[in-house]
Amino acid sequence: MSLLADLLSTVFERRYRREAPGATEDGRPLTEMATALVGSAGETSGLALAREILSRFAELEDADKLAFFQDIASAMNIDPEAVRTTLDDYERSPSKASYQAFADAAEPARQEFVRRLNRVPGATGALVKMRADLLRLGGKQPELQALDLDFRHLFASWFNRGFLVLRPISWESPAHILQKIIAYEAVHAIHSWDDLRRRLEPTDRRCFAFFHPSMPDEPLIFVEVALTKGTPGSVQALLVEDRTALPAEEADTAVFYSISNCQAGLASISFGNSLIKQVAADLSAELSGLDTFVTLSPIPGLTKWLKQVGLTWTTDDPENMQALAAHYLLNAKSSRGLPFDPVARFHLGNGAIVHAVHADGDISDKGRAQSGGTMVNYLYDLARVAQNHENFANTREVVATAEVQALAGPVALPKTEER
Amino acid sequence: MSLLADLLSTVFERRYRREAPGATEDGRPLTEMATALVGSAGETSGLALAREILSRFAELEDADKLAFFQDIASAMNIDPEAVRTTLDDYERSPSKASYQAFADAAEPARQEFVRRLNRVPGATGALVKMRADLLRLGGKQPELQALDLDFRHLFASWFNRGFLVLRPISWESPAHILQKIIAYEAVHAIHSWDDLRRRLEPTDRRCFAFFHPSMPDEPLIFVEVALTKGTPGSVQALLVEDRTALPAEEADTAVFYSISNCQAGLASISFGNSLIKQVAADLSAELSGLDTFVTLSPIPGLTKWLKQVGLTWTTDDPENMQALAAHYLLNAKSSRGLPFDPVARFHLGNGAIVHAVHADGDISDKGRAQSGGTMVNYLYDLARVAQNHENFANTREVVATAEVQALAGPVALPKTEER
Amino acid sequence: MSLLADLLSTVFERRYRREAPGATEDGRPLTEMATALVGSAGETSGLALAREILSRFAELEDADKLAFFQDIASAMNIDPEAVRTTLDDYERSPSKASYQAFADAAEPARQEFVRRLNRVPGATGALVKMRADLLRLGGKQPELQALDLDFRHLFASWFNRGFLVLRPISWESPAHILQKIIAYEAVHAIHSWDDLRRRLEPTDRRCFAFFHPSMPDEPLIFVEVALTKGTPGSVQALLVEDRTALPAEEADTAVFYSISNCQAGLASISFGNSLIKQVAADLSAELSGLDTFVTLSPIPGLTKWLKQVGLTWTTDDPENMQALAAHYLLNAKSSRGLPFDPVARFHLGNGAIVHAVHADGDISDKGRAQSGGTMVNYLYDLARVAQNHENFANTREVVATAEVQALAGPVALPKTEER
Amino acid sequence: MSLLADLLSTVFERRYRREAPGATEDGRPLTEMATALVGSAGETSGLALAREILSRFAELEDADKLAFFQDIASAMNIDPEAVRTTLDDYERSPSKASYQAFADAAEPARQEFVRRLNRVPGATGALVKMRADLLRLGGKQPELQALDLDFRHLFASWFNRGFLVLRPISWESPAHILQKIIAYEAVHAIHSWDDLRRRLEPTDRRCFAFFHPSMPDEPLIFVEVALTKGTPGSVQALLVEDRTALPAEEADTAVFYSISNCQAGLASISFGNSLIKQVAADLSAELSGLDTFVTLSPIPGLTKWLKQVGLTWTTDDPENMQALAAHYLLNAKSSRGLPFDPVARFHLGNGAIVHAVHADGDISDKGRAQSGGTMVNYLYDLARVAQNHENFANTREVVATAEVQALAGPVALPKTEER
Repeated sequence: MSLLADLLSTVFERRYRREAPGATEDGRPLTEMATALVGSAGETSGLALAREILSRFAELEDADKLAFFQDIASAMNIDPEAVRTTLDDYERSPSKASYQAFADAAEPARQEFVRRLNRVPGATGALVKMRADLLRLGGKQPELQALDLDFRHLFASWFNRGFLVLRPISWESPAHILQKIIAYEAVHAIHSWDDLRRRLEPTDRRCFAFFHPSMPDEPLIFVEVALTKGTPGSVQALLVEDRTALPAEEADTAVFYSISNCQAGLASISFGNSLIKQVAADLSAELSGLDTFVTLSPIPGLTKWLKQVGLTWTTDDPENMQALAAHYLLNAKSSRGLPFDPVARFHLGNGAIVHAVHADGDISDKGRAQSGGTMVNYLYDLARVAQNHENFANTREVVATAEVQALAGPVALPKTEER
Repeated sequence: MSLLADLLSTVFERRYRREAPGATEDGRPLTEMATALVGSAGETSGLALAREILSRFAELEDADKLAFFQDIASAMNIDPEAVRTTLDDYERSPSKASYQAFADAAEPARQEFVRRLNRVPGATGALVKMRADLLRLGGKQPELQALDLDFRHLFASWFNRGFLVLRPISWESPAHILQKIIAYEAVHAIHSWDDLRRRLEPTDRRCFAFFHPSMPDEPLIFVEVALTKGTPGSVQALLVEDRTALPAEEADTAVFYSISNCQAGLASISFGNSLIKQVAADLSAELSGLDTFVTLSPIPGLTKWLKQVGLTWTTDDPENMQALAAHYLLNAKSSRGLPFDPVARFHLGNGAIVHAVHADGDISDKGRAQSGGTMVNYLYDLARVAQNHENFANTREVVATAEVQALAGPVALPKTEER
Repeated sequence: MSLLADLLSTVFERRYRREAPGATEDGRPLTEMATALVGSAGETSGLALAREILSRFAELEDADKLAFFQDIASAMNIDPEAVRTTLDDYERSPSKASYQAFADAAEPARQEFVRRLNRVPGATGALVKMRADLLRLGGKQPELQALDLDFRHLFASWFNRGFLVLRPISWESPAHILQKIIAYEAVHAIHSWDDLRRRLEPTDRRCFAFFHPSMPDEPLIFVEVALTKGTPGSVQALLVEDRTALPAEEADTAVFYSISNCQAGLASISFGNSLIKQVAADLSAELSGLDTFVTLSPIPGLTKWLKQVGLTWTTDDPENMQALAAHYLLNAKSSRGLPFDPVARFHLGNGAIVHAVHADGDISDKGRAQSGGTMVNYLYDLARVAQNHENFANTREVVATAEVQALAGPVALPKTEER
Repeated sequence: MSLLADLLSTVFERRYRREAPGATEDGRPLTEMATALVGSAGETSGLALAREILSRFAELEDADKLAFFQDIASAMNIDPEAVRTTLDDYERSPSKASYQAFADAAEPARQEFVRRLNRVPGATGALVKMRADLLRLGGKQPELQALDLDFRHLFASWFNRGFLVLRPISWESPAHILQKIIAYEAVHAIHSWDDLRRRLEPTDRRCFAFFHPSMPDEPLIFVEVALTKGTPGSVQALLVEDRTALPAEEADTAVFYSISNCQAGLASISFGNSLIKQVAADLSAELSGLDTFVTLSPIPGLTKWLKQVGLTWTTDDPENMQALAAHYLLNAKSSRGLPFDPVARFHLGNGAIVHAVHADGDISDKGRAQSGGTMVNYLYDLARVAQNHENFANTREVVATAEVQALAGPVALPKTEER
C-alpha cells in the first residue's frame, strides 16, 4: 500500500496545491454554480467551478446540504417529454445523432454534474463523502433516492472491481492507514495500537484491503485473517493476548474472522465477495500448506429471530444454544425466501456453505446479545464456490455439513420478516 | 511513471496469472456468452465468463469481430416499449423503484456488458483495444455508431481527468514505455533510440504523459517540451543533433512542440487541453524563470485549403508563404464557422491565441506538403486562457498578435468545408 | 523512508530466507569457527560459516559473549614482530608486495573477521548489535577497548555520511518505524501513539532520520522539528495537546527540539552535525519563509555543576535561574577548556552560538532536576556555521548574543571537571 | 532496479544541488586542499573541501591526475618511525590510547583522505572513477601500486557483498541503465536496442545485476541467462533472431551465457561468484522445474596456449578442435599450478566443474580467434559447489565429467605461463 499511497497522494496533493490559487472566488449560489458547471462547454472554466463547488459544499451545514441535494435532484432530473421525443426520433430513424440525442435525454443531468465534479484531481473521495451525506440526510424522499441511484450508478462503474487494487496491510503499513483500520473495524473492535499490532505482526496473522487508485489513503473494505491448524470455534481464542504464533508454513487453514466496509458513501457497492476470493487465491499461491478457507462469523440475527418466533434460550445451556443457531441458519427465512440472517445471506450468496456452528464462540457483550454467544464457520471451497453460488441463486437452498444438519434437527418453523 | 507502472503491472499480472487457471473453458458461441454475462446475477461466475469473452474476442478475425459487434449492438439495444412503459410509471408515481426501472430500461444492456467485462483485472486496456477495432471496422453503420457512443460514454467516465496521473517521461523511464513513445509519436517522427534520447536527456528537454492507473504500461497522450530562450520558429533548430543544451534555469520559454494521442480506442475522449495546462503549471512551479508557454505547431490544413480556394504558392518565396499561413489561420473557416485548421481549432478552443507564424519552420517532406513549410506558435497565457476560451466559445473570433494580423492582411476569403 | 525500507527489507528478507536452509550446521566452538572464517580462502564456504557464527552469537548468554570477545581480541590481535619485519622489508624495498605484506600485518585479523561476517546479507544490523554488546560488557579492559576501536574504525567507514539516506518521518511512515521512534526518543519521552501523532501530523511539525541502506528498518538518529513564528522558550508550549497548527508557509523559524541517537552500537560515530545541517538545508529549500534555525535544548549539566561549585539555586526565582544558566553556559569549562555542558559542546562544536536562555523552559521532573527548568536556544546561522566552527576549534571561545552575555554577568568561576 | 535507482538518485541529486551553492571556491593547489582535508578536524568545513577536490580532480588532464596521485602517494604515506614508536608503546603498555595511536600510525593518511572524500553524497562513484584513472595511469610505479592497494582495501570494505543489492534487469528497466548494459557487455557484444530487447524481453531470458546503494545508476556486474530445455552448445543458437521463446515454467536448465564486470575502478573486487550463486538460488526458488545451472563460456586462452606449446589446429576439423579444447581445460596449467585459462580458473575456483565441451560453439570472429570456435559448459551443482570449491582450493584438481575426460585423452603437456 505504502508505495501506491505515497506516490499518488504526492501527485494529487501537489496538483491540488498548485492549482488551488487559481480557483475562482465565485459568489453565486451553489445551485447556480452547479447549473453553470453542467452547462459549461469547456473544461477550462469547468475545473475551477467544480473545485469551488466541492469546497463550498464541504463547509455547508446539514440543512443546506439537504436543500442543495433537493435542488439538483429536481433541477437536473430527466425531462420526460424530451425522452419521449428523442425516443420517437430514434425509433423512426436510428442514427448516431438520434441515438446520442436520446441517450442525452434519458440520462439525468445529475450524472454529468457528478462526472464533472470528478474532474478535479482528488475529487473522488469528496464525492463518496457527498453520497454519505445524501444517504444520511435523504431518508425516504423519492427524488433523493433517485439522486442516490445516480450516484450509485456512477460509483458502480468507477469502483468496478477491475479498477481496485488489493494491498496487504501489515505492521509496516503507514500509520495513517492503520489508524483508519482501527477506526473502521466493525466486527471485533480494535482497542489500541497494541491490539492492532497483535492482529498484524505475528507470522500467522494477515490483513488485506481494497483500494481505489484515486483514493490511495482510504481503504474501501478490509479483511482480517488468522492462519491456523484446524478450524477455530471462538474469536476469544484468536484474539487472546498471550499466545505463540504459528509459523505460516505450518498452517492448513485461513480463517476470515472480520470483514469491514469502510466507506458509508459506497453503500450497496459490493466488494466483499471479490475480496474474499482474491485473498484466498493469493494466500493459496503463497502458502502451499493451506487447504481450507473458512470464516469465523457472527450470527447477528439470531436472538432477534428467536424473539420473533417466541423461542426462549439461555447461554447457560451451550448445547441447546448451538442447536438453536444451527436450526436458525438452516431454516429461518425472510419473506423473499432468503436466509433471515444478513451475514448468512452474504456468504451463501457468495457460494460458501455452513460448515460448523459453535456455542460460546463470542462471549463479548455484543456476541451474547446478538447471538447468545454462538458463531458460525462458512466454508469457501474454491473449487465449488461458482457452482454453489449458481445453485443458491436458483434454489435458495442452504447447504450445510451433515453435522450442522444433525444439530439443526427436523423442526420446520414459520417464515418471518427479513430485517 | 516507473514506480506506478512497476507496482500496478506487478499487481495485475500476478492476479491475471493466478486466476487464469480457474477460467472456465466455455464452448458456447461468443454472443451467447455475452448474453449470459449480462444476465449473470453474481460476480462469481461472471468473472470467469468475462475473462473468457475477452480472451476469445482477442483472437477473432476481423470479420468475426464485426459480426460480434453487430450481434451485441442489436441484441443488447434499448427496448423502446420498455422505456415508454417505465417512463410512464415513473412519471405517474416517482419512486426509487420506478426510477430504477426507467434507468435500467433507458440504458442499453451493452453498457452493462462492457462494465462487466471490465471487472476482470487488467481488462480496461483490452476494452480500449476493442473499441479501436469497432472504430476501424464499424464504419458508418448507425447501430455500430450507437454501440460506439456507449463505449465512449463509459470511457469518458472511466478516463475522467480526475483519474489520470501525469508522469514525466525521461531517459530514466522504463524501456518498454519509451518504445511506445517512439511508436506513438505522430507529429515529428522519432527515428531511433538516439533520436529519442536527444529529446529526453538534455537539461532543456522534457516530456510528460497521462496514464490511467488500470493501464500503467500505456501512455494515453504525451507532449514533448523544449525549454528555450525566446520563441523558436523552426522544428529543425529544436531537433538538430549537435547543439549545446541550455541549463533549465536559464530558460524563459517552454515550447510544446509535439503532442501525440496514443490510443485509437480513446478517440473523442479529450486529454490534450488538460495535459498542456497541467504541464505548464508544473513547469512554472519548478522553473521560476519561465514566463512564456507556447506551442510550435504544424498547420496541417494549409495547402489543402489553398487548393480549395484556388490560391497558388511556392516555398521559394518565404515571405509570401508566411503571409498566406497567417491569412489562413485568421480567416479560413469551416461551414460551422470554426477555424478550418484542426490544430488551430484545438488550441484556440483551449484558450490559446495565434502568437507568430514562420516560413521554413518545418522543411521535412511532410512539412512542405501540408503547409509549404510554415509553422505557427500558439501562446498559452495561463492568466488569460479561461477568458480566451469563453470568448472563443461565444464569438469564434480568432485572436492573434498585431504582428500576425499585419501579416495576414485585410483580405477576406470565402468559407470552405471543414475536413 | 517507506519506499526504501519496503524495497530493501523485501530484498534482504527474501535472500535471508532463501539461503538459510543451506546454512551448514557447524558443531565447532564459536572461536574455532571464527578462526576458520578468517582463514577461509573463498567466499563460498565463508558465507555459510559467517551466517552460522552470527546466528550462534545472537543466542549466547552474556558471559559467553564476553568470553568470545576476549578470545578474538587476543587470538586475532596484531603480531608486533610481523609488523616490524614487514615494515623493515617495505622500507628497504617499497613494492606492491612489500606494502601489501605490511598492511596485512599492521591490521589485526579482527577487522577482516568483522568484514567477512558482514558479507551475509542483512548482517550489518547484527554487527551493530554485537558492538553494543561489546560496549555493554567490555568495560575498561584494554584488549576489549582495542577490539572496540576496530569495530569503530570499520563502522566509521561503513556509516560514512555519503552512504546515509535522509528520510522524512511522518504520520504516513510505516508503523514499525514509528514504534522505534517512540522507543528511541531520548530527550522528551513520547508517551503514546497520540503523543507521537501530535509531533508528526500537524502542518508545523516535522521529523527526519538518517538511515543506512543495509539497515532500512532501523533509524540511526532522528530530529524533531517545530515550525514557529519567533523562537520558543519552553518545550511545554511546543508539546501542549490543544493548539492550532501554523501553516508551514507562515513559519519563520525551524526549532530542533529533540535529537536522539538510536543505536548503542554506533556510539562515537557522529551523525548529529550532518543531520542538523542537512535538515536545515532541506527545510530552507522547501519553505522560503524560514530564516532562523535554532534548537530548544536542555542544559543537562547545570545543577550538577552548581553543586560542584557550591552555588545554590531555586526554581522559584526564574530570573536568577536564568542568569545562572547563562553564566554556566558561558563560563563553566571542563579541564580541557571545553564547555562543561555536553550539549553545549556538541552544538558549539558544530558552529552554533548561544542565542537565548529561558527559565521554566522544561518544567518536567527531569527538566527541573538537571537544569532547574532552564533551557537554551542554540542558533545555526547557515552562512556562518563553518566560520564559527573553525573559530571554536581554535579558540574554544563560547559565542553568545549580547543578551545572554548580559544575563551571564561578569563573574568568572573556577574550572571544574568535565563529567 | 528502477525503484531503487529512482529513489536514491532523486535523493542524492537533490542533496547535491542543494548544497552545491555553499561549496567554497577554493583557490589552493589540489594537493594542499587534500592535506587540509585530512587535517580538518570537523565535518563542517571538510565537506565543502571534499566536494571541491572531487570537482577539481574530475577536470584535470591525465598528466595532472598522475602528478596528484604521486603527490598524495608520497605525502600521505605511513611514517615508519611513527609506526615503530607507537608499536613499541603499545607492546609495552597495551591500552585504548596506545592501540589507537598505533592504528593511526600504521594506516596511511591516504585512506582517511579517501574516506573523507566519500562523505560527499554521491561521491562513491567518483572515487571508483578516480581509482580507474589510477589503474590506467599508474602503471607499475610501486608507490602508486601502494596507493591502489589502499583504494582496494577501502573498496573491498564498502562493496562488501552484504551491501550489494541484486536487481533483475528487464525490458521494463530504465533506459539509462539499459544503455549501460549495452556499453558494458564484454563477452557477446550487444549490437542494438533490438538485440538487447531479444536478450531481455522473451519469457525464457533473464538478466541480473549487482548494484551498490550509493551508485544506483551504475551496475557493478551483470549476468545474462537463458532458460532452456537441455544444455546448449552454441551461443549462435541462443542469440538467433527468429526463435520461439520457451515458457519459463517448461525450462529445466538455466544457462549463464555472459558475465560482464562494469567498473574498471573495481578491479580485483570480486562479485561474480556471489552473483552466479545468488541468481541460481533466486531462479531455483521461482521456477521449480529448473534442475541444472550451467554456463556457456568462452575459452579465451586456448589458441594462445596452443601456439605456446606448438600445437596446430584448424576449425575445419570440429572433432579435433573439441578434443584440443577438452585437453587444454584439463591439463594446461599456469606456473602456479592453476588452470591456464582465466575463465576456467574463475568457475573452477567457484566450485563449478567442466561439464561439456563444444566445437563451433562461437563462430564469431572473436570466438574463432581465441578458441577456434570452441565453448565450454561449467556446471554449478548447488549442493556440491562448497565441497568442490574446498577441494579445488586444496588440490587444484580440475574436475570434469567422464565424457570430457574421454575427449581430453591421456596426453600430459608441459606447464606454461599464466597470462
